Amino acid sequence: MIPSSLILYDLAGADPALRFSPFCWKIRMALAHKGLDVTTLPWRFIEKEAIAASQQERVPVLVDGEEWIADSWRIALHLEKKYADRPSLFGAPQAIPLTRFFNTYADTVLAPAIGPLVLLDIAACLDDPNRAYFRATREKFFGRTLEELVADKEAHRATLTRVLAPLNRTLTDQPFFAGEEPAYADYCLFGMFMWARCVSPQELLTEQEALHGWRARLLDRFDGLAGKACRIGG
Amino acid sequence: MIPSSLILYDLAGADPALRFSPFCWKIRMALAHKGLDVTTLPWRFIEKEAIAASQQERVPVLVDGEEWIADSWRIALHLEKKYADRPSLFGAPQAIPLTRFFNTYADTVLAPAIGPLVLLDIAACLDDPNRAYFRATREKFFGRTLEELVADKEAHRATLTRVLAPLNRTLTDQPFFAGEEPAYADYCLFGMFMWARCVSPQELLTEQEALHGWRARLLDRFDGLAGKACRIGG
Repeated sequence: MIPSSLILYDLAGADPALRFSPFCWKIRMALAHKGLDVTTLPWRFIEKEAIAASQQERVPVLVDGEEWIADSWRIALHLEKKYADRPSLFGAPQAIPLTRFFNTYADTVLAPAIGPLVLLDIAACLDDPNRAYFRATREKFFGRTLEELVADKEAHRATLTRVLAPLNRTLTDQPFFAGEEPAYADYCLFGMFMWARCVSPQELLTEQEALHGWRARLLDRFDGLAGKACRIGG
Repeated sequence: MIPSSLILYDLAGADPALRFSPFCWKIRMALAHKGLDVTTLPWRFIEKEAIAASQQERVPVLVDGEEWIADSWRIALHLEKKYADRPSLFGAPQAIPLTRFFNTYADTVLAPAIGPLVLLDIAACLDDPNRAYFRATREKFFGRTLEELVADKEAHRATLTRVLAPLNRTLTDQPFFAGEEPAYADYCLFGMFMWARCVSPQELLTEQEALHGWRARLLDRFDGLAGKACRIGG
């Protein structure tokens, strides 16, 4: 690890040790991949002022010297460029645009497939003011109560199975999406599984799935950074 | 173009000029990308003996000197390795495993989303013995008649919209999936659109979609190889 003055605002539950943001997990893994030490600061949904210098209201936010960088994709590109002498997050420049699709698939297909399975678990991890904020913003966005959103569990499980299918299939031929070793494409997807793992006792994967072994390998990476992370009831 | 003795067995309709296989189109584009001349031989579903030397029963089959290579992914890897001095199909070795997911997404998510919209159009393009073969094999595989498979057009359109969403989103930030210039990841997906375009007058994309411009750019590439290709009623 390279000592650094990097600071990451990292979404936390009522327990400050519980760090469950899928987008922050992408960056936690990216920083570890680069071998960069980081100070993570617990941050909650309603603490908008703490990250006002980033010109927006969501985490992850990375503070790198004078720079405040928001949005996980932008942070990944920043790390790749600024710490170019460290292991590449993409393997080669040509892999960056391809990785962008993994990022989009993770955020717009995988996250919405996992979300309905863990929404109430997330709410249960929060303190009262953040739980009220979480419920109000999500219910407004989706136009339904959290309870309505999670209700049809069978359908949500079927959706998840469908969404995971091309991922499982790809991993029958290679240990990581990026090949023999993981890279940012893997971390984009892995962040979504960490989200569920931190807040919920539910198991999303069966041992027969290729993703199960892939996730286990990533949980073990970087001295078990993700595997040792705080879980609800863990 | 480099003159070569390459031969590609290429799925054809009753009209030998109609070449509509999505998997063959991946390889047509890959060969053009490499600047390799090729002789394409029209081949129909029931002509198993013609490609027996490939040890299997489907096209594309590439004959490169003494070698018979089947399966579009294996053919792409063969071309990349054997013609390493020609423009790379992947851009960098690190992009190959990432491209594998595009290939899988094209074959196992996009193709099944387009298929129900064009199955009857395909059947209409075939001569009698091949139409009978096509109908029998597909109906056996899916356990339903072709007419049943295509029936719920609204639902099929909705599925396609969902499947295209992460692709459209990715292309809002870059002209091709591989970046500034197309590569094999693009051809994997593009093959599926050529499949529909060759056999059907239906339009799968609206002009508002990023994929629409992307497809147009690929239709124009290589002196309009794909754009000038034979279409039913075209």
